[in-house]
Amino acid sequence: MFLKNVWYVAAWSNEVGRKLLSRQICEQPILLYRKQDGSPVAIGNMCPHRFAPLGRGKLIDDTVQCSYHGLRFGPDGRCVLNPHADGQIPGKMKVRSYPVAERHDMIWLWLGEPNEADQSAIPDFSCNTDPNFRRIDGVFEVRANYELVTDNLLDLTHAEFVHEGVLSSEAITSSKLQTHQAGSTIWSNRWCPTGDASPAWKVAFNNYDKPVDQWLYMRWDAPAHMLLDVGLTPVGKTRRDGIWLYGTDVLTPKDAFTTYYFWGFARNYEIHNPAVDDFWRSSIKLAFEDQDKPIIEAQQQMMGRRTVSELNPVMIAADTAATRARRTLEKLLQEERPGAVLRSQAEPPLSLLRKHVDSRVPVQPVV
Amino acid sequence: MFLKNVWYVAAWSNEVGRKLLSRQICEQPILLYRKQDGSPVAIGNMCPHRFAPLGRGKLIDDTVQCSYHGLRFGPDGRCVLNPHADGQIPGKMKVRSYPVAERHDMIWLWLGEPNEADQSAIPDFSCNTDPNFRRIDGVFEVRANYELVTDNLLDLTHAEFVHEGVLSSEAITSSKLQTHQAGSTIWSNRWCPTGDASPAWKVAFNNYDKPVDQWLYMRWDAPAHMLLDVGLTPVGKTRRDGIWLYGTDVLTPKDAFTTYYFWGFARNYEIHNPAVDDFWRSSIKLAFEDQDKPIIEAQQQMMGRRTVSELNPVMIAADTAATRARRTLEKLLQEERPGAVLRSQAEPPLSLLRKHVDSRVPVQPVV
Amino acid sequence: MFLKNVWYVAAWSNEVGRKLLSRQICEQPILLYRKQDGSPVAIGNMCPHRFAPLGRGKLIDDTVQCSYHGLRFGPDGRCVLNPHADGQIPGKMKVRSYPVAERHDMIWLWLGEPNEADQSAIPDFSCNTDPNFRRIDGVFEVRANYELVTDNLLDLTHAEFVHEGVLSSEAITSSKLQTHQAGSTIWSNRWCPTGDASPAWKVAFNNYDKPVDQWLYMRWDAPAHMLLDVGLTPVGKTRRDGIWLYGTDVLTPKDAFTTYYFWGFARNYEIHNPAVDDFWRSSIKLAFEDQDKPIIEAQQQMMGRRTVSELNPVMIAADTAATRARRTLEKLLQEERPGAVLRSQAEPPLSLLRKHVDSRVPVQPVV
Repeated sequence: MFLKNVWYVAAWSNEVGRKLLSRQICEQPILLYRKQDGSPVAIGNMCPHRFAPLGRGKLIDDTVQCSYHGLRFGPDGRCVLNPHADGQIPGKMKVRSYPVAERHDMIWLWLGEPNEADQSAIPDFSCNTDPNFRRIDGVFEVRANYELVTDNLLDLTHAEFVHEGVLSSEAITSSKLQTHQAGSTIWSNRWCPTGDASPAWKVAFNNYDKPVDQWLYMRWDAPAHMLLDVGLTPVGKTRRDGIWLYGTDVLTPKDAFTTYYFWGFARNYEIHNPAVDDFWRSSIKLAFEDQDKPIIEAQQQMMGRRTVSELNPVMIAADTAATRARRTLEKLLQEERPGAVLRSQAEPPLSLLRKHVDSRVPVQPVV
Repeated sequence: MFLKNVWYVAAWSNEVGRKLLSRQICEQPILLYRKQDGSPVAIGNMCPHRFAPLGRGKLIDDTVQCSYHGLRFGPDGRCVLNPHADGQIPGKMKVRSYPVAERHDMIWLWLGEPNEADQSAIPDFSCNTDPNFRRIDGVFEVRANYELVTDNLLDLTHAEFVHEGVLSSEAITSSKLQTHQAGSTIWSNRWCPTGDASPAWKVAFNNYDKPVDQWLYMRWDAPAHMLLDVGLTPVGKTRRDGIWLYGTDVLTPKDAFTTYYFWGFARNYEIHNPAVDDFWRSSIKLAFEDQDKPIIEAQQQMMGRRTVSELNPVMIAADTAATRARRTLEKLLQEERPGAVLRSQAEPPLSLLRKHVDSRVPVQPVV
Repeated sequence: MFLKNVWYVAAWSNEVGRKLLSRQICEQPILLYRKQDGSPVAIGNMCPHRFAPLGRGKLIDDTVQCSYHGLRFGPDGRCVLNPHADGQIPGKMKVRSYPVAERHDMIWLWLGEPNEADQSAIPDFSCNTDPNFRRIDGVFEVRANYELVTDNLLDLTHAEFVHEGVLSSEAITSSKLQTHQAGSTIWSNRWCPTGDASPAWKVAFNNYDKPVDQWLYMRWDAPAHMLLDVGLTPVGKTRRDGIWLYGTDVLTPKDAFTTYYFWGFARNYEIHNPAVDDFWRSSIKLAFEDQDKPIIEAQQQMMGRRTVSELNPVMIAADTAATRARRTLEKLLQEERPGAVLRSQAEPPLSLLRKHVDSRVPVQPVV
């Protein structure tokens, strides 16, 4: 049901520290923490002795002490201390240890065979650590299958209805949705020249009320790693004359009906202004938590335990990207075998950006 | 599990208007509203595009706009607007449209084949719209299978125990329960001459404290359409000398373990006195919500997911009507086939009444 | 899944009286009350007529009147009154009646064949009624399988971690755990000479701060009847010089994932001092409700519906007693057949005590 040979985001870097963090990734109980040297660790969260959650325990140096009987486990998952009686440690007294990588301010976790964990397969979200950007981030827990959230993110036509009066604009609505695919990477692009900005963006752009060029470019990599490039600029101008941001939209299945939604907004303007942080933070809360999340969860409730394909949905043109992603994922799941690691086909967004920040490309879509 | 070729009550007329009303009838998600001309509409509540509940959307003229992607559906269930891109509407983009009829101040919905929806098969509840009666009504949601609620309503012997001090009286308890059947219509009649009124009825009858003749006649049609004729009069007198009311007790399965109970009380006395409305409203709240509902839901909890017949109940004489209804329903379910529409065998209560209001019949039971 | 030919504790004696008490024992709905002569009764709690829980009804003399239709059932489970119509009572109108015994201030219930209910098979908990002891008691409902609670009670090595700063002490931690078995009775003994008392016991022993000899002896009988003998005395002294108590730890499955934990503490010191009652009552609340219960319930949540053996636990030496109990129980379940009644092999604790209260035995373990 879940791809194994991919990197999943388990947490934002700032969520993991010297306090134990329990997560469930693709139905597997995971425990996250940092060693004294700062490096992140992900091990199984279920004690092999009596199945207590290790996350209720204590971090002692680089080891985790179970809160029930005090067995201690190291970063490699092996039991390193049995405090009882003879102190003998059976060879099987260990939890799984997961390869992790800290990249783009996120903790990535590999569910597949450890020796196939190739960090070069991590999709590029380098906007999150670039000093020229200011990022805000967070995580939502959504009571819906992760593909329903993907549908929501890849199909920006819902803005007009779900986000009416906030993120909707006639120029966006009437723009054409273009879908591209290279390997398993998919883009869903909306290029919206010469129109009114949506209300939220108008405020963000100092209440600029002349026509603007707007863009919403969404990149998808399997299973649900999305990067949104969204912004506006005065008509005919370059990015440097406008404002824009990169949105991290990475979904990690908790289980078949629950999803962690790791979101980030890395903007290129007023990067030292906390009021702008607050503006976007409350916009996101409004747009996702109050608008998208309820409808997605209502969708899942309506579907019950049935999948989208069991329900045989009727498609419209706006579904092209979401349907491609769904089919690509289905194919990858069917064909998955050890040793085959997915790689994003996308040129890193920042290198693309730097090449073109003063030109009309990539204001207009590159792919 | 549910009869199809019957009319189900989906709502009281006063519940349906220019605001979308979501109901679930026999496990099917249903959306109810009125067109601009006032006529009621029932369509499927699950958008065929991405399965969002249409009930979260907006009513625009006679159409419903989905709150997610803005597809609009007409009263016949067909998509009439796709606001995106080319605006093309696939032929399959439609929800089911259900035949509805507004009769006796209730919205009746047909679950079977639309071309077999014969409104003459709707049982007679004309007391609800007769200007000589004053009606109060409402709907309860009961967390129990609808047949358990039928048992409760058809077997009035529980009054003495469940409604002790409110609706119980020695005269009712000691009266004989008579069961009749014509076609699939069943009556469960209690004729209780010369006795004390139950406490609630004594209050209703101006604290009359001489002996009265009382009656409780319950009519049942499949699957769970009941009409109660209940009242009292001084001993030996006609209806005109007493007070009485018609109780609508119509049960519609939400699912196997949840039931909508549409109740109405149409009384023939003090029809312009709101204090009497309040009296009966609080009596019903006390009798059903505080007394019947908890015991019925406790029954269901005790049964878990097992059915009554799986549990092999031990019968007593008082169960005759309930058992007949249960068996009649079982037989109808087994024999159900397209084209066979059930019809109530009962003479309409008002015509029956008008013939006899000044005689001892139907104070004493007709059937 | 549950042993049948054993006595289960259904309640403490003080819980059962002239008020109906509903319990669920091994998934069976049970109703408990006392007859007018004070003797306890246990009958099925589901009315055979319409499956209402009898526990919502009324106790009338020695019979229970169902709150729904007023059928009355006697202590032998037979219906003794049908208040309706002809009043006939079908022969099948009865609920099961369970053999019960009141012993050691507990109500014991026999789930197996009634004619095999041999009260001599009830394990000895006579400390609970001995006038030389003062008992406090109660019942917890734990959302975990009863064997997980047995694990917790039989394996006292968790004290150091779960009860750190309350019931832990270096002397206990470093003591050897000795396991004995006779028939199906198992002992798990910790004899901890010359060490510091745990914080709670130090307070109990008038803040005595010299080294003490401590003991924790736990006796287990199937399916989960445990008696703890725990205390301390100045080094080298007898019991008479110290303080100790008997802990009743009897587990009764409500269902596969819920357990009644009947606990009692019968102490031999300051038996007329209510402040000591309060001290132990709050210590138990802290130790079990705030410390053991959360970790046991977290264990069950981690396991979901999987059993311990399905999860293939990795053992350590400290698990010896718990593992023996688990295997003994599994064997008893496999071999259970009518007529084979389990009997505790243990010498009654009080007779053992009286023989030795002034010697070093049984301060040091007898078995």
